[in-house]
Amino acid sequence: MHNAETLFRLAALNTEYANCIDADRLEEWPGLFLEHCIYKITTADNYAGGLEAGIIFANSRGMLLDRVASLREANIYERHVYRHFLGQPWIVSEDAGDVRCETSFFVARIMRDGTTDVYATGRYIDVYRLNSGSPKLRERIVVCDSSRFDTLLALPL
Amino acid sequence: MHNAETLFRLAALNTEYANCIDADRLEEWPGLFLEHCIYKITTADNYAGGLEAGIIFANSRGMLLDRVASLREANIYERHVYRHFLGQPWIVSEDAGDVRCETSFFVARIMRDGTTDVYATGRYIDVYRLNSGSPKLRERIVVCDSSRFDTLLALPL
Amino acid sequence: MHNAETLFRLAALNTEYANCIDADRLEEWPGLFLEHCIYKITTADNYAGGLEAGIIFANSRGMLLDRVASLREANIYERHVYRHFLGQPWIVSEDAGDVRCETSFFVARIMRDGTTDVYATGRYIDVYRLNSGSPKLRERIVVCDSSRFDTLLALPL
Repeated sequence: MHNAETLFRLAALNTEYANCIDADRLEEWPGLFLEHCIYKITTADNYAGGLEAGIIFANSRGMLLDRVASLREANIYERHVYRHFLGQPWIVSEDAGDVRCETSFFVARIMRDGTTDVYATGRYIDVYRLNSGSPKLRERIVVCDSSRFDTLLALPL
Repeated sequence: MHNAETLFRLAALNTEYANCIDADRLEEWPGLFLEHCIYKITTADNYAGGLEAGIIFANSRGMLLDRVASLREANIYERHVYRHFLGQPWIVSEDAGDVRCETSFFVARIMRDGTTDVYATGRYIDVYRLNSGSPKLRERIVVCDSSRFDTLLALPL
Repeated sequence: MHNAETLFRLAALNTEYANCIDADRLEEWPGLFLEHCIYKITTADNYAGGLEAGIIFANSRGMLLDRVASLREANIYERHVYRHFLGQPWIVSEDAGDVRCETSFFVARIMRDGTTDVYATGRYIDVYRLNSGSPKLRERIVVCDSSRFDTLLALPL
């Protein structure tokens, strides 16, 4: 049984994370990570096989900001929005302010024409830094259950 | 970081809200609103464009009760049930007992023949009145992500 | 308004429950139940009609362990994984350490070829035993909204 307060703080960060993406406040999304951080999107098969290559990889907040900027500038992808649903964080360990944690996600995608589909499901494998203020993500590995990916993959998961 | 107690109370109201609809306790649903209230269903495009017209509109608890009564009497719609899934409330502001808040929703629809689909996704844009007892909804604007609506729209979202 | 601490403990058990199944830690799943317990999967129509026959039925932790063992040994079902999403527990009553509670569930299924679908929605109708440590399930009736079932039904819901 883990600390209710810790769980509450992680869930609040995840709510903010989902809102940044779903409400098109992408510029605020990198601010949820530490300056030195890992953000990676991969598949369950690759993750289980220890394959390092991810679909998307960043190892600093600056790279995340660059990614957002290029999404804004290029804007060549077909317009769509995401809607994230996150489970309750499942805490693996807590050590000196670093919390290891897994959280299930489900993302619905709504295309310009109104079509809605189950875009992706999976789990976030996270390391959070619990600061005195809001916690920050030190590492988020987005492990998608399915290996089939729409080539449209553009917005962060 | 918002107050854990406030968040807990809003989440409890939302759980009750979903249960009233999904468990066919529709008559209890209007009781979650203040006597003078706004309940509106609209689309993200209309909402962003400032268009006032909603798909459904009510400005009193009495209108919500009337709606439930007519659903019960008419009963001409094809039998179906909903299953709501709500994210954690994302609190925008809190002022003298009024809380402004957004919550993602996902509604699955199960038809009489067993077919299940993703019926609607979107966000509730809410104003809650925090009373000494249970909070009440002063305003709930249901903003659906998709502009495509099944004409079956009958049960509340 | 129910006790935040009770709700937190039930939600933590449900997070663990989902993780046991979704992360393929099936052997740990029976440990969330009491030695003498009820686990049943049925449909909303059968449940409403008072029909006792369920799709799956167990009345002891031993039967749940047997079920997991046979899933491991047989292994004839097409490979697939589940991803559970659970609502917040809706507490019906609390009496001398037994909590009656309902919780909405949504399970996505991801097949070997990457296909993802909405596999099942419904509600858990539960009785929890609140021990001094982690709560345990005395009874979980899995009531699926749809009467249509894929014959693949193999992993626990």
